[in-house]
Amino acid sequence: MASTQDVLDRIDRNREQHLDELREYLRIPSISTDPEYEGEVMAAAEFLRGKMDDAGLDTELVASPTGGYPMVYGEWTGAPGKPTVLFYGHYDVQPVDPLDEWRNDPFEPTLEGDDLVARGATDDKGQSFTHVKAVAEVLAERGELPFNVKFLVEGEEESGGESIEAYVRQDGGDKLACDCVVVSDTSMYAPGQPAMLYGLKGLVYMEIRVQGPNRDLHSGTYGGAVRNPANALAHILAALRDPDTGRVQIPGFYDAVEPLEEWERDAFGALPFDEDGYRDDLDVPALHGEEGYSTRERTWARPTLDVNGIWGGYQGAGAKTVLPAKAGAKVSMRLVPNQDPQDVARRFTEYVHQVAPSGVRVEVETVHHAVPTRIPTEGEAMTAATDAMEAEWGNEPVMIREGGSIPIVATFADVLSVPVLMMGFGLPDDRLHSPNEKFNVQNYHGGIRTVARFLDRLAAS
Amino acid sequence: MASTQDVLDRIDRNREQHLDELREYLRIPSISTDPEYEGEVMAAAEFLRGKMDDAGLDTELVASPTGGYPMVYGEWTGAPGKPTVLFYGHYDVQPVDPLDEWRNDPFEPTLEGDDLVARGATDDKGQSFTHVKAVAEVLAERGELPFNVKFLVEGEEESGGESIEAYVRQDGGDKLACDCVVVSDTSMYAPGQPAMLYGLKGLVYMEIRVQGPNRDLHSGTYGGAVRNPANALAHILAALRDPDTGRVQIPGFYDAVEPLEEWERDAFGALPFDEDGYRDDLDVPALHGEEGYSTRERTWARPTLDVNGIWGGYQGAGAKTVLPAKAGAKVSMRLVPNQDPQDVARRFTEYVHQVAPSGVRVEVETVHHAVPTRIPTEGEAMTAATDAMEAEWGNEPVMIREGGSIPIVATFADVLSVPVLMMGFGLPDDRLHSPNEKFNVQNYHGGIRTVARFLDRLAAS
Repeated sequence: MASTQDVLDRIDRNREQHLDELREYLRIPSISTDPEYEGEVMAAAEFLRGKMDDAGLDTELVASPTGGYPMVYGEWTGAPGKPTVLFYGHYDVQPVDPLDEWRNDPFEPTLEGDDLVARGATDDKGQSFTHVKAVAEVLAERGELPFNVKFLVEGEEESGGESIEAYVRQDGGDKLACDCVVVSDTSMYAPGQPAMLYGLKGLVYMEIRVQGPNRDLHSGTYGGAVRNPANALAHILAALRDPDTGRVQIPGFYDAVEPLEEWERDAFGALPFDEDGYRDDLDVPALHGEEGYSTRERTWARPTLDVNGIWGGYQGAGAKTVLPAKAGAKVSMRLVPNQDPQDVARRFTEYVHQVAPSGVRVEVETVHHAVPTRIPTEGEAMTAATDAMEAEWGNEPVMIREGGSIPIVATFADVLSVPVLMMGFGLPDDRLHSPNEKFNVQNYHGGIRTVARFLDRLAAS
Repeated sequence: MASTQDVLDRIDRNREQHLDELREYLRIPSISTDPEYEGEVMAAAEFLRGKMDDAGLDTELVASPTGGYPMVYGEWTGAPGKPTVLFYGHYDVQPVDPLDEWRNDPFEPTLEGDDLVARGATDDKGQSFTHVKAVAEVLAERGELPFNVKFLVEGEEESGGESIEAYVRQDGGDKLACDCVVVSDTSMYAPGQPAMLYGLKGLVYMEIRVQGPNRDLHSGTYGGAVRNPANALAHILAALRDPDTGRVQIPGFYDAVEPLEEWERDAFGALPFDEDGYRDDLDVPALHGEEGYSTRERTWARPTLDVNGIWGGYQGAGAKTVLPAKAGAKVSMRLVPNQDPQDVARRFTEYVHQVAPSGVRVEVETVHHAVPTRIPTEGEAMTAATDAMEAEWGNEPVMIREGGSIPIVATFADVLSVPVLMMGFGLPDDRLHSPNEKFNVQNYHGGIRTVARFLDRLAAS
């Protein structure tokens, strides 16, 4: 059987073709949030399915159980009794506005040095296409794989991901049964420095609505007579966090929090991190967060609470002397293992009602929640992944966590009960969701090679 | 010389004509805030000037020193050496939106029972036209007035009043010299119960802008790293008032406050006031304000602080996990004599900077301010006014204050150093600034008679 090096050589030989195929894929404006692009989103699904067919996979478009876009499914199950790897990705992309900030047409991929600039270049067409091309080249070189693979690539990641969530929970358990999941929708730590992401925060997103009088009032005529709902809202929001210690003041909020392990604090502390540069880039007078923790620890592994939006009364230019009828805010909390989003939502709601001043009516709604995830940092799949990354990039991957939430990762971990390997090939400055999104072509090529290496390492372990 | 009763009889005989003239005046849509109505605003000025000409006054349109709408000026100065009364009013009106809530065309005055329904019916065309018709009828009956009168009617009261403010301060001192000013732009206390307004609050209107990071951030990636400007704003706003006592927490805020006099507390307490009905009308669970004072005392004669508007981050439906770059609020304080708006603005600004959390940049701007006013409740002019009201309505007027500000009243008091008599003929439910504004025709007629009585009483005193 052809060696790993044979496969890597083949990947190198076909480098231009891989790039051409990615360009073709990127030319399809598969913006899932905008119904005008429905045809293009479907075209992207068909394109990807075609590439999986070409690779030698058995494919289908899995209809959405919620009426949304289908998932592209592909499998090679020629190794019965052998382990199975499930590759996840998404074929939809973010909208492109503000369009005038793009240097080129966002759907005409443009090479600028080693960077391929296009919407979706990294997120996630480019990254998830590495999985397809790696499997395709292994099959082309050897006619078989050392074990089974499945692909599930969704078209709604940028618009809520409802379809895949429902599908995995309802029907996916058997069909998707596997030994590990591979996701490439994250970043390396720095150029040349690979990273394995092993922890994601959860989320509870709440909305507070404060109703004062039944209509906007003249602040002269009625000022002093009724509780102002915007003032009341400020009191509620101010009570949520201690402004000095940065601690969330909701009783029991920290009860279930899994403390940072000693090795994690050491590992995070050892990572290169230019705190001054970070502060200057954000142009804030000082960084701020929960006392007793570093910036990395706070953003990656400590729960947080932020007002995401606030509104009420007059927001225009100049003066309008209104005492507003109502005010509201959106507040989200990022959770860490083992916080339970529903428990936190309940505590939040109780606390808001407890601290709310009299004379107004307060409603609290849970808009959205996601559970926190932590992947074991040991095990065969993880070792195969870290070995593959180190072999490809020449540096041992660093173990990192992340403050964001990827709900499908938690769902896979929950439903399939397997490790989810977050193996990112993007770079931190790839401008995901922003104008001039890019993907470094060396990283694209290295990503394909890394996935091929990973398959062989996993088979050998 | 014809008696007061002869004048009143004449006013009664010409009642229909007075109403017809007011209708004609109300048909002119003189909306000063909307540049589309410029021609109509000018037409209203010309109409009013014509009515003053007809009355026998010497008139002119006084050009605005700030490039806005002219003031209609009229005078009868045939009694040299005798006192002078200056009548103030405004010929512009509020916009009419929401138009679909009007039962009739807002500029086609419609009689509904005793109510004339039209935009401007009370505020202020109807009320200030009583001055013109009263003077016209006295002159028609007698060929002369017992003393001198001046009229100054502006066209920008609903759009900032800049022209008259500049004119009175720059050039008005000599031309407008008088012994008292009469303003009819307020309300009676209740049907049949006249009121003299002797106190108005001042105002300081501030804007607070809190700048966090230089761009909106992902609340997952950056939550815990930087101070959230919306959270910081909530802390600032919460620090402004004690939520329990309702007291403003700005150091020195109450230092200059003129305490309520004993007779005022007695007088306010003796006024009929249905507190339950008031609360039910506003549909709040409870009224609220500074502890130790009644609702009337708080709204009329105690300083207040209200958030007029608040904004920041995501205000749409659902969830957007943004850590906003900035947040802001508009906050106004209603002031009582002898609070100095500029001093309060300074204290506010210092306090906001003092309580602002670290890690954000805070700007405070004074948007607007107005000085509080208190008119002596004694003196010849005040006595003439209260006697005239009692004679006309059969009830002694109650002495009231008001939480709003009428900046021109303070300017008149300041520049001309004379009492400003606020003699209102409207009713509290006249729906000023709202759809279906109305003016009771009995009040219009009684208003003309009251002004005629006032002129004779003042001449006799």
